[in-house]
Amino acid sequence: MIVVLKPKISAKEEKAVLSEIKKLGYKPHVMRGVERTVVGAIGDERKHKSLETLTTWSQVEQVMPVQKRYKLVSREAHKANSTINVRGNIVGGKKFQVMAGPCSVESEQQLLKTAHAVKKAGATILRGGAFKPRTSPYEFQGLGLKGLKLLAKARKETGLPVITELLSEDHAELVAEYADILQIGARNAQNFQLLIAAAKTGKPVLLKRGLSMKIEEWLLAGEYILANENPNLFFCERGIRTFETYTRNTLDLSTIPIIKKESHCPIVIDPSQGAGRADLVVAMCKGAVAMGADALLIEVHPNPAEAWSDGAQQVTLEGFAKLMEELQPFITAAGRE
Amino acid sequence: MIVVLKPKISAKEEKAVLSEIKKLGYKPHVMRGVERTVVGAIGDERKHKSLETLTTWSQVEQVMPVQKRYKLVSREAHKANSTINVRGNIVGGKKFQVMAGPCSVESEQQLLKTAHAVKKAGATILRGGAFKPRTSPYEFQGLGLKGLKLLAKARKETGLPVITELLSEDHAELVAEYADILQIGARNAQNFQLLIAAAKTGKPVLLKRGLSMKIEEWLLAGEYILANENPNLFFCERGIRTFETYTRNTLDLSTIPIIKKESHCPIVIDPSQGAGRADLVVAMCKGAVAMGADALLIEVHPNPAEAWSDGAQQVTLEGFAKLMEELQPFITAAGRE
Amino acid sequence: MIVVLKPKISAKEEKAVLSEIKKLGYKPHVMRGVERTVVGAIGDERKHKSLETLTTWSQVEQVMPVQKRYKLVSREAHKANSTINVRGNIVGGKKFQVMAGPCSVESEQQLLKTAHAVKKAGATILRGGAFKPRTSPYEFQGLGLKGLKLLAKARKETGLPVITELLSEDHAELVAEYADILQIGARNAQNFQLLIAAAKTGKPVLLKRGLSMKIEEWLLAGEYILANENPNLFFCERGIRTFETYTRNTLDLSTIPIIKKESHCPIVIDPSQGAGRADLVVAMCKGAVAMGADALLIEVHPNPAEAWSDGAQQVTLEGFAKLMEELQPFITAAGRE
Amino acid sequence: MIVVLKPKISAKEEKAVLSEIKKLGYKPHVMRGVERTVVGAIGDERKHKSLETLTTWSQVEQVMPVQKRYKLVSREAHKANSTINVRGNIVGGKKFQVMAGPCSVESEQQLLKTAHAVKKAGATILRGGAFKPRTSPYEFQGLGLKGLKLLAKARKETGLPVITELLSEDHAELVAEYADILQIGARNAQNFQLLIAAAKTGKPVLLKRGLSMKIEEWLLAGEYILANENPNLFFCERGIRTFETYTRNTLDLSTIPIIKKESHCPIVIDPSQGAGRADLVVAMCKGAVAMGADALLIEVHPNPAEAWSDGAQQVTLEGFAKLMEELQPFITAAGRE
Repeated sequence: MIVVLKPKISAKEEKAVLSEIKKLGYKPHVMRGVERTVVGAIGDERKHKSLETLTTWSQVEQVMPVQKRYKLVSREAHKANSTINVRGNIVGGKKFQVMAGPCSVESEQQLLKTAHAVKKAGATILRGGAFKPRTSPYEFQGLGLKGLKLLAKARKETGLPVITELLSEDHAELVAEYADILQIGARNAQNFQLLIAAAKTGKPVLLKRGLSMKIEEWLLAGEYILANENPNLFFCERGIRTFETYTRNTLDLSTIPIIKKESHCPIVIDPSQGAGRADLVVAMCKGAVAMGADALLIEVHPNPAEAWSDGAQQVTLEGFAKLMEELQPFITAAGRE
Repeated sequence: MIVVLKPKISAKEEKAVLSEIKKLGYKPHVMRGVERTVVGAIGDERKHKSLETLTTWSQVEQVMPVQKRYKLVSREAHKANSTINVRGNIVGGKKFQVMAGPCSVESEQQLLKTAHAVKKAGATILRGGAFKPRTSPYEFQGLGLKGLKLLAKARKETGLPVITELLSEDHAELVAEYADILQIGARNAQNFQLLIAAAKTGKPVLLKRGLSMKIEEWLLAGEYILANENPNLFFCERGIRTFETYTRNTLDLSTIPIIKKESHCPIVIDPSQGAGRADLVVAMCKGAVAMGADALLIEVHPNPAEAWSDGAQQVTLEGFAKLMEELQPFITAAGRE
Repeated sequence: MIVVLKPKISAKEEKAVLSEIKKLGYKPHVMRGVERTVVGAIGDERKHKSLETLTTWSQVEQVMPVQKRYKLVSREAHKANSTINVRGNIVGGKKFQVMAGPCSVESEQQLLKTAHAVKKAGATILRGGAFKPRTSPYEFQGLGLKGLKLLAKARKETGLPVITELLSEDHAELVAEYADILQIGARNAQNFQLLIAAAKTGKPVLLKRGLSMKIEEWLLAGEYILANENPNLFFCERGIRTFETYTRNTLDLSTIPIIKKESHCPIVIDPSQGAGRADLVVAMCKGAVAMGADALLIEVHPNPAEAWSDGAQQVTLEGFAKLMEELQPFITAAGRE
Repeated sequence: MIVVLKPKISAKEEKAVLSEIKKLGYKPHVMRGVERTVVGAIGDERKHKSLETLTTWSQVEQVMPVQKRYKLVSREAHKANSTINVRGNIVGGKKFQVMAGPCSVESEQQLLKTAHAVKKAGATILRGGAFKPRTSPYEFQGLGLKGLKLLAKARKETGLPVITELLSEDHAELVAEYADILQIGARNAQNFQLLIAAAKTGKPVLLKRGLSMKIEEWLLAGEYILANENPNLFFCERGIRTFETYTRNTLDLSTIPIIKKESHCPIVIDPSQGAGRADLVVAMCKGAVAMGADALLIEVHPNPAEAWSDGAQQVTLEGFAKLMEELQPFITAAGRE
């Protein structure tokens, strides 16, 4: 930690800061600059109490942490890229993966039709929501267990592994029984109890970035998974909330090189939530592939205008097939398969 | 719903839109403007499926909802201000209320000392965290049940009712046993399962605004409480996330007149989280009182520099006593007691 | 400056950093921590080149400035509050000041009627736009010189000094001839050439905060005024841009205690731009007064529904008179006149 | 315009709204819905006064514009992609263009060395700042006229056309004499007087997106160029301001498909400003190419650590050559040359 003192404080005031730094378990190291005195507080910032509380003292101007707060998810902890095996599909390796399917599971016919179509077009994992977090209590909340069973049926028919959202600690066991990957949604990205419950199932966890989550906070939320002894974590960028209203969210594709730099975990891009508009999905997929994403998570529906949730951002079956074709040259250019 | 069509579409394309509007349960009403044709879709937007899915059609430019999506929390549903009785303290009425106490419960001595001091200075409700949501898994996570018991003891000694945070659906019963108000934190503000669990305990619920929650989303999250048959809801503004880094969050005091206009539920301001800096708390409290807040939620600690969480934003016992004195003339000017 | 080195770099790599720090004019001071080595670079950060460029080196993790970048506007440079004399009205002193008038000057009748009404209600300075910055080239751009002449006429009739916006370097002389305060709008807050031109007229300058301007950037933009030998600077908060869409902007009232802490210059609040909604103006004015603002800048129009610009945020003449009455107890509570 | 009335207003109140709508030049058309009455106001929204002022009336709930406010820059006005001829380089056509060079022109040696290197690596246009907008008045403000002359010299030696920033209306003639493209920076993106001055020189104008500019505002700022009879406009995305602090700005690559959809003007991406970090530039360039950008604007410096401005975001000469090589497969995949 670096503690910057206010200019022109008394020797006694300075001494009090040094004593408190020692009391809190750090070794102070004083540097006198041109206008300000700076104290380096030497010690492991993750083990000791934070010195940021010192900013309540009138003689302290600011306190700056030096260490990174995350550890197990960091690239320093694991130099190579981590790969995650999802029923034989290796995510994070040379093969580019596409997770596709409807926003919500609505019926057997809707799900199976979509599952077969996305498989044919090249998707390798099936997505579909059984429990849906909805802004309003009056909106469709998902088919629940019935939806999970339909997903299992679709997996059996197509061979595609299944990713679905986990909303509640109480459902962790149940959802893990049916799903191959547990998705944690943006609004639950700092619901730490849910993260712990998801980690403990042992299933791979896909952690979406919260709407206003800084990179560091996202990495730390991921740290909750690895610290609970589950090494299989995907980070998934799905757009952040900004002032812009043209798109529902602002998809932050810079997270691809950033996560690759800071962490060893795979990075997945969700352009459907990211844009909230089907007409922008193709371009965003191309960008994600070119920038080095490991996988895409795309919402596909046989008839988006009549979807029970988020129709505006779902692409049609034909649209998805065309998208997969257009992506091909970029997957090759990115050195992927 | 208002559906705006693209300019120069064919009669057939227009007709398809009108048919789909009917199919989705609305009655279309066509208006031809100078450049664009607009269709009013008449029907109850809360009962029917959303027409926003129509934006996936190439002949549709935009779809605009007309109705408000929230109902039970709205001022239209209940003209008068709602008041909430917390062990005899009426929040939302003429008397201005102050909830104060430490960020985290750390020890019996720390809590009791603070409780007595804030009571003496005029606080009417005691706050204190027993379960703490922390950005990093390596930070202090609260004393848990032991913390709840200490809060109950402090209540017994001082007579102050207790507000404490609920983090997990699984703790709802337990926390409700000890607390007089359940606090839902900003990071869980759209954890709908937790909202439902909190509502079902029957205890009053204080719902903090999420870090990037729009007013409408906040009202709809509150709707989850009332729709689960718990009428005792407080909205609590605690700062939103913006680009500014001088303060930890940007306290949005305009929520006071806005919540008063849109809803009948009381509004509470949390200046400690709002600023993240103890030195700004006094001014923010004054502003909140003047603008018509019903209560304040303030973090107070005997020794902020050694607090186990969020020390930088906690005021000292002396600071709190002085603050309460300085607030007095503004409480009077606002026509409160 | 503090330069944080990456863990496990070679001695040679470290030495290269130290040499470069010296070359850029600083004296390096090495501190070895538990995980990382930190170098304090001693020297005047405002005089030397920035070391932030070192972040391009692979062995450097981050560079953190220690000094404040602003000087003349800072509280350190001038302990007492600065006051500004505007034709006998002292802004920044014990007397609370209210600047009021129409968004745009539209006609002699509209302006004079408003000017007399706001004076009668207690306003002390007249506002009115002659040159208007408009988002679209097809919107009303202001009456220009004719508007300035009408403002001068209104001043002559009512005795109220005049504040009006300066949009163009080329108009600086002209506007300064008619106005008592030059207003720099939010969209020009970092138009440094305009700031310099405004400063050089010698007239007081009211600098609005840009839509996405950090406090530090705002203070530095103010520094352009004082560094060009004009000591008469007001900071004016008018709302920042956030994700919220209920209000046009988010009025950040925390700027009042922050500017008072960091600077000696007066702080003015503009609740009309801040909310973009007339119905929220009263509450915001109360909050601003209570929190210690020196003055308000309020848009008032005889018939807002027919205003040529920004009608939605202008209050009526009657509304303004009522507002001034309601503010009185808060002005007294704040210890102002 | 769509005017939504409050529920349960009187017939007289409704009539007053209809009269005012007529008075403001629109034809009202009433639609009665389930809970609310909606009035379609038919007329050209760009010609008449805005009805948004009606929101000040107590019986009006909201007013929603239907038309797009921009015209000349819109795709509706010009179906085909516009191309701009810069001394023989066609931007916006099949050939992908790269503008590269130092943030600031510092010396003849620095500029010429960079210009020759970027040309060799494949850049087609030279960038370099002679007038620099700086957050602090104490930072290097550019070489001014001397910088312009060095740019002209570099153009003569290398044949590369030159793009440089225009900061001041007063310099428009001067800068246009030396430059082939005038750049308008993010902080001046709504400095409308500067936009008009730039347009009137007749030179192509590259308009950066402001830090918190919505897409619609950006298009309208561009409209200022075309409405002043200069058809040669580039839009340039350079990152917006968000809550994230890992990067200096958040590069919004979704602007590529959005600008292509809404406008016929070319879109350029500036990854250097966008990230503020040289280590992220390569990935962002790949994304921009894949998503359909027409050109890149990249900061390159022979020795970034000693750059006089923004060193942290400039790539080295070697780094640039490598970047150009790595881009090649993506340019091919995108169907460009």
